[in-house]
Amino acid sequence: MSSNTATIEDQRQKTSFKFTEAILPGVDIQMELKNIMISTKSEYQEVDVIETTFGKMLVTDGKTQSAQMDEYVYHEALVHAPLIKAALDSNGNGPKSVFIGGGGELATAREVLRHKCVERVVMVDLDAKVVEVCKKYLPEWGGEEVANNERMELIIGDAYAYLNNCTEKFDAIIMDISDPIEAGPGIMLYTQEFYSHAKSLLNENGVFVTQGGMADGISKPNNIEPGSDEDFQAYAAITNTLDTVFDCVVPYAVNIPSFGSDWGFVMAFNTNADDKKKDVQAFTNIDETKIDAMVEKNIGVDVLKYYDGLSHRRMCTLTKPLRESMKKDTRIMTKDNPVFMY
Amino acid sequence: MSSNTATIEDQRQKTSFKFTEAILPGVDIQMELKNIMISTKSEYQEVDVIETTFGKMLVTDGKTQSAQMDEYVYHEALVHAPLIKAALDSNGNGPKSVFIGGGGELATAREVLRHKCVERVVMVDLDAKVVEVCKKYLPEWGGEEVANNERMELIIGDAYAYLNNCTEKFDAIIMDISDPIEAGPGIMLYTQEFYSHAKSLLNENGVFVTQGGMADGISKPNNIEPGSDEDFQAYAAITNTLDTVFDCVVPYAVNIPSFGSDWGFVMAFNTNADDKKKDVQAFTNIDETKIDAMVEKNIGVDVLKYYDGLSHRRMCTLTKPLRESMKKDTRIMTKDNPVFMY
Amino acid sequence: MSSNTATIEDQRQKTSFKFTEAILPGVDIQMELKNIMISTKSEYQEVDVIETTFGKMLVTDGKTQSAQMDEYVYHEALVHAPLIKAALDSNGNGPKSVFIGGGGELATAREVLRHKCVERVVMVDLDAKVVEVCKKYLPEWGGEEVANNERMELIIGDAYAYLNNCTEKFDAIIMDISDPIEAGPGIMLYTQEFYSHAKSLLNENGVFVTQGGMADGISKPNNIEPGSDEDFQAYAAITNTLDTVFDCVVPYAVNIPSFGSDWGFVMAFNTNADDKKKDVQAFTNIDETKIDAMVEKNIGVDVLKYYDGLSHRRMCTLTKPLRESMKKDTRIMTKDNPVFMY
Amino acid sequence: MSSNTATIEDQRQKTSFKFTEAILPGVDIQMELKNIMISTKSEYQEVDVIETTFGKMLVTDGKTQSAQMDEYVYHEALVHAPLIKAALDSNGNGPKSVFIGGGGELATAREVLRHKCVERVVMVDLDAKVVEVCKKYLPEWGGEEVANNERMELIIGDAYAYLNNCTEKFDAIIMDISDPIEAGPGIMLYTQEFYSHAKSLLNENGVFVTQGGMADGISKPNNIEPGSDEDFQAYAAITNTLDTVFDCVVPYAVNIPSFGSDWGFVMAFNTNADDKKKDVQAFTNIDETKIDAMVEKNIGVDVLKYYDGLSHRRMCTLTKPLRESMKKDTRIMTKDNPVFMY
Repeated sequence: MSSNTATIEDQRQKTSFKFTEAILPGVDIQMELKNIMISTKSEYQEVDVIETTFGKMLVTDGKTQSAQMDEYVYHEALVHAPLIKAALDSNGNGPKSVFIGGGGELATAREVLRHKCVERVVMVDLDAKVVEVCKKYLPEWGGEEVANNERMELIIGDAYAYLNNCTEKFDAIIMDISDPIEAGPGIMLYTQEFYSHAKSLLNENGVFVTQGGMADGISKPNNIEPGSDEDFQAYAAITNTLDTVFDCVVPYAVNIPSFGSDWGFVMAFNTNADDKKKDVQAFTNIDETKIDAMVEKNIGVDVLKYYDGLSHRRMCTLTKPLRESMKKDTRIMTKDNPVFMY
Repeated sequence: MSSNTATIEDQRQKTSFKFTEAILPGVDIQMELKNIMISTKSEYQEVDVIETTFGKMLVTDGKTQSAQMDEYVYHEALVHAPLIKAALDSNGNGPKSVFIGGGGELATAREVLRHKCVERVVMVDLDAKVVEVCKKYLPEWGGEEVANNERMELIIGDAYAYLNNCTEKFDAIIMDISDPIEAGPGIMLYTQEFYSHAKSLLNENGVFVTQGGMADGISKPNNIEPGSDEDFQAYAAITNTLDTVFDCVVPYAVNIPSFGSDWGFVMAFNTNADDKKKDVQAFTNIDETKIDAMVEKNIGVDVLKYYDGLSHRRMCTLTKPLRESMKKDTRIMTKDNPVFMY
Repeated sequence: MSSNTATIEDQRQKTSFKFTEAILPGVDIQMELKNIMISTKSEYQEVDVIETTFGKMLVTDGKTQSAQMDEYVYHEALVHAPLIKAALDSNGNGPKSVFIGGGGELATAREVLRHKCVERVVMVDLDAKVVEVCKKYLPEWGGEEVANNERMELIIGDAYAYLNNCTEKFDAIIMDISDPIEAGPGIMLYTQEFYSHAKSLLNENGVFVTQGGMADGISKPNNIEPGSDEDFQAYAAITNTLDTVFDCVVPYAVNIPSFGSDWGFVMAFNTNADDKKKDVQAFTNIDETKIDAMVEKNIGVDVLKYYDGLSHRRMCTLTKPLRESMKKDTRIMTKDNPVFMY
Repeated sequence: MSSNTATIEDQRQKTSFKFTEAILPGVDIQMELKNIMISTKSEYQEVDVIETTFGKMLVTDGKTQSAQMDEYVYHEALVHAPLIKAALDSNGNGPKSVFIGGGGELATAREVLRHKCVERVVMVDLDAKVVEVCKKYLPEWGGEEVANNERMELIIGDAYAYLNNCTEKFDAIIMDISDPIEAGPGIMLYTQEFYSHAKSLLNENGVFVTQGGMADGISKPNNIEPGSDEDFQAYAAITNTLDTVFDCVVPYAVNIPSFGSDWGFVMAFNTNADDKKKDVQAFTNIDETKIDAMVEKNIGVDVLKYYDGLSHRRMCTLTKPLRESMKKDTRIMTKDNPVFMY
């Protein structure tokens, strides 16, 4: 065959297999599917590892959990914003102990372990199958090296139950769990009651962070009102709920191409400062060189690919549409009144 | 999770992975893709074995070759129409020797070998990789059992070259090859010159058959004129070309769901009858019990799933739109003037 | 721009808009969508007229009703098989009066009116909006010319209720209605009780016909057993049910590309013959010249595009997989035990 | 029908029609297509106005130009960043004259005209059809009200030729043109030569800005190296090229959901400051209250939906992956060595 023909046929081949995922009501992202490495079921969910344009991907119940090409964006944002906060507060002597709720992909633990000051990580994930699959098929995420790290205690179990029975305190609690979906296992981990309990397990200057799902103030299909029953985003509700428990909350958001949208996180902590708002602003618009210096001290140079002083500023500075949308949403998540995402 | 939730999530999962194939210009068939069993490249083409709604499927260069759920329709139609013709002509004493051009999936040989009278099958396929993949992943198509059958001679090579150097004669020649695509390897196997040579290799009462690609007289996107340069079907041209070489041609067509359309075959043979047309009609509208009796004698009862006396009648009786469309198409395929399909 | 560029951009444009329809569980047909001529809602359903590769199409509730390129296949098959039967039985002196249940597209009436002997057509369709939309956007289907034909009585109403109150008798009753879908309006029109009543409204030698939905004995996703609760086809059940009411039933099937599969119809009539089975065979495998002669006499030459003697034979001769599948399905449709399609 | 059934059918209907667009090689965004308001061709391109989940959308040659739900993000970012810069430099006495290259949707002009100090806008767009279609179908973008504004001079023509013959000088030049695609009309407007000429047409303290296409440092399908021939983004090359012409460049980027990615812009201006880098930083991380005050003075309160002091900071602060990716890309765009996007 002529090379010309080969090219045409390559292109045809490329588009034969597709992975499609809804990112908004009425909007899908669709990728070339190069391989299905494993397609299995755990006790809790469908678990697939596939290869697409974005490299290897973990997909559970048809939803992208992370992709090789950009998982570092999610995991660095989730981990380093709170841990660098704790490091700054302790002049680089901490954080020392970190709890991870969920985190079965092991990449969150991978990022936590980059902090030289961290002495102990307790990670509790419900789904042994996910951990096993990630170890085997996604070693780049962390794999055995992270799972077997001597600083790690990896527990298969219910993070909610674990913390309820926990007497240990932590410098940071990082919630890397599924979105709050109706009948999903994680719904209790997005409630005021849980956040109050988590706060009680933090050391002084401790910091709490949770992933917060899609954080998009712009796309409102069918003109859904923020905070209404039709609202398929829980980001503002999570922020509001943490705000009822902690002195300070810092919602922050990054663009994750394989998720097809901006993605939100919410950090929360207490402060002794009189002007709590000013305290937050000082952190969100901190001189970038201070972040860069602390990253260099506690982690090293040329280690991180996403997080630095300027990325910190971008992600902690929300756009006007997102801020306005969040203002309109007054929902508080409690055991009796949970909020469900799309 | 409640079973209700599970059901919803199963459905979401089901539609995440898709296999899409163009069946007409501007028309695709799209299937749930359950698994990619292997995705590789041979010297000649991309070779994939996947699992879809239609069961396991062999896909080369993005085009479905056959699917577990309906490969029997294609292979029984291709093989039994000509071989039962030969059996009827020889009162069940034949056919004895059969040549298969292509046939790498081994299912054509599987059907040929069902004829108890067949003593020798020579099969020549270009692509060793396809044969190997089918043996390993698609044993239901025939697999080792067929490949190692003592009546089989399986040769990896160019069927065109093989027949050019061949001095052996056959009772039937069955061409189970790719559609004539520009720069494809099989283009020479769809020419008047090849058909003439093939005829010379047939024993008396011998029969020739070839697959003929899509056979649809109805769907003419953009009002493409049959036989024009834009015509993406070669079925009429194949029929015309065989008609210039053999006394009788019998175009026949079956619906193959995984191909998304009716699919054509053309049988050709010589006759001593004065009225050749009548000879053809006698065969196409033969009393169904005669076919059923010969199938029972030469193959057995409850063996075939598609081919019997009534299926024979349906497939040999073309619809008016297909007949009219074929009438308008006067192309003859020669080495110097090949015809390319979509 | 160079013509080369134009070509590339044309292709990109062509694939931007798509119409997708499920044809089987896990299998979709997807077409280039060139235009949405109208997208509206009636009292009963969503009603869209679009333009695709198959020309203009009527789509209700997301399901293709008919397409410009092949609507003649459906409508000629539905109408001429029974009316030519009636014509043969009356030596071309009939049929004279025809009832159409449904038929809002007006193409069924168009085909009925081609029969010169037909003196009166009563058509009762539930959905005034569909009739109006078809008149305006799909004049090729029949339009005002058919609606205003002096032999036509066009009634907007419930065909079931109309026939229940009807004292008139007909030479043919043609049911051109939606598939039996749960909660759909037509479910009563697919019951033993209705068929019994319809029989009572037929003149001697009268014939009944109904469309029967997908007629595919091959594609059984998930190995669904014919006649089981998971069976998404009602074709066998319709045939069985008519068989409990009439002396003779003739199931017949044609390939309709825009439906993505073979499509079924069931004709039913009474007979005075002793051997009812033989009576059916005589009709299904009738010498093609007899059909052609009656079409010429009662309709004319070069009028029909699909139906003729050979098309009749093909459509009335079912494939083995479909016959076997239908044998296994013993469901009878009654008011108390309706059967729902996919 | 029960409301339950209605809901199911609504959902089926919703997904029948789709608009699909490639956003990266191997990645598509796919939206529910509710309506095709117009589908036409101009002298230069296919022009469609459709309705999707994102509201009304202008699509040319299959590529989204803007969507009702988020066009304000693109247009406010493109316009207000440079005009507020000019306003700050002139203490709110300017800008007075603005040139818009392209801008056929009229939304860029709409945003420019919000600046009370602007006395004259010259807009030159090549495609009369696009302007006409936008006036008629997309009045929310600006429409007649903008086109007929007494401060507007709207010229149909080639912006490149116009500026070449132009002797007038402007306070701001805003390039709102198509991406640089091979054989596209706008390729000359992305060259060093054009930027040099544009600089010569700026008044003192004048500012130049151009849209810059996708600005994603993360998604590198097939590990494409930034700046290599396979690189399908031109954002770094545009920035580099402007940097050879102007004293200061400010690349900035916003997330636009309907584009499926972060989108880039590049502002450029001259400065008398000794430390040009510091001058840029002072602007990108300017105290948000200063921006907010100038927006209030020159535009008003509650007018803008995207641009304010914090949005300014977010968009002017690029993420580490984008900065790193841009560093590696050293391409300069000249007449003789243009760079083409995906």
